[in-house]
Amino acid sequence: MRKIFVIGIGAGDPEHVTVQAINRLNEVDVFFVLTKGSEKQDLVRLRQEILERYVKEPAYRVVEARDPDRDRTPANYETAVTDWHRLRTDVYERMIRDELADGQRGAFLVWGDPALYDSTITLVDAVLARKNVEFGYDVIPGVSSLSVLAAQHRTAFNRIGKPVQITTGRRLAEGFPADADDVLVMLDANNTFTKFPDMDVFWGAYLGTPDEILVSGKVSDVADEIVTRRAEARERKGWIMDTYLLRRT
Amino acid sequence: MRKIFVIGIGAGDPEHVTVQAINRLNEVDVFFVLTKGSEKQDLVRLRQEILERYVKEPAYRVVEARDPDRDRTPANYETAVTDWHRLRTDVYERMIRDELADGQRGAFLVWGDPALYDSTITLVDAVLARKNVEFGYDVIPGVSSLSVLAAQHRTAFNRIGKPVQITTGRRLAEGFPADADDVLVMLDANNTFTKFPDMDVFWGAYLGTPDEILVSGKVSDVADEIVTRRAEARERKGWIMDTYLLRRT
Repeated sequence: MRKIFVIGIGAGDPEHVTVQAINRLNEVDVFFVLTKGSEKQDLVRLRQEILERYVKEPAYRVVEARDPDRDRTPANYETAVTDWHRLRTDVYERMIRDELADGQRGAFLVWGDPALYDSTITLVDAVLARKNVEFGYDVIPGVSSLSVLAAQHRTAFNRIGKPVQITTGRRLAEGFPADADDVLVMLDANNTFTKFPDMDVFWGAYLGTPDEILVSGKVSDVADEIVTRRAEARERKGWIMDTYLLRRT
Repeated sequence: MRKIFVIGIGAGDPEHVTVQAINRLNEVDVFFVLTKGSEKQDLVRLRQEILERYVKEPAYRVVEARDPDRDRTPANYETAVTDWHRLRTDVYERMIRDELADGQRGAFLVWGDPALYDSTITLVDAVLARKNVEFGYDVIPGVSSLSVLAAQHRTAFNRIGKPVQITTGRRLAEGFPADADDVLVMLDANNTFTKFPDMDVFWGAYLGTPDEILVSGKVSDVADEIVTRRAEARERKGWIMDTYLLRRT
């Protein structure tokens, strides 16, 4: 039977890869790489660097496929995402069915931790549910970008015994969560933290990479700096991945 | 100057240790180990196993200290925790000041990720703030028990674009969070999930270890099984560490 590994490879620093991930990388026949166009070539290169560094006897193939684009300005966010997932499921199914022989092992490498705002597990489950190709699969947990953010700022997610919410910029724009004083925000293209001038923010971009930027402080003090440095970095590199912790003081 | 590393070492499986953590482990002169009495000897042994496995030229010392007990049934939870932290800060300060020479490197090994319901960063900051001993320090992120839980159940924390809340059993007992459909629960000694019979639960104990137990399903279907297996395992081993994801369906 075919076997699939969904492997969390950390947030960008090749040293954030775990021993378990390295062991699985060394068992893989085919790596499936989804490309999103030129802006993410840095990430494709970083992934390649991880393979070159950790696979001892390279005998693997790399299969690339174009990741279908998502409608970035949909009328209905959830419907657009669902349509997008169906198209992506087609791509995943083709890769697993056509590029992997019976008994071979394939892998999807996921930035950060596969449990956190990543759709690979959902997509692999969707392929399984279609029953067009049989395979087993395992998920290998990874160090998330949120863990790297907190480590670099030397802070915890939460205060003693208190809850923490992980959410998106889109949701945060609707209001600060009622039941948490600490909020970890991902996928925010709109600097939504600027709406909360009295809170503390711990912001980081390109975490774990040589381009890493860290800014922290009261939002009213550091918002301009973050907005400016974010825009400059995005312009210079052509893409940005950033996240932040927003803390009620 | 003295240097301290706060190192996340994963949730229990020695293979969840990262390359960065291994590199730091190999630079450490003194490991500080806080013991809590006989019930956690399994964890002390696991920590020792990680050192034996990954430190190539062992020249380190291990300094053990008794971790002050917390009042488990306090009138005021937060005050009791704050008092406990002050006593622990005394212990941390003594270890860093008296057991580490100038220029030496000390480390605290933290299960899971230091950002998540762990007080080591807070305690090290508290020691720094007292200014009785000077040192630099770095935090090394780790794979959290929550990431292992999700990986073993092959599920993500959150549904597409939706928030997820991380909270304690104590907080969950006050009600399901208003702004999240997915809740990750830690430190729950009271099977609080049984209050939510219509939800789905993904439960795990001793994650990443040979004693790992996983149960998932609708709460009304699996609550009895979890409660029974949890009690049996706790009785047999003398301690339990478990966590779960509770999902509104």
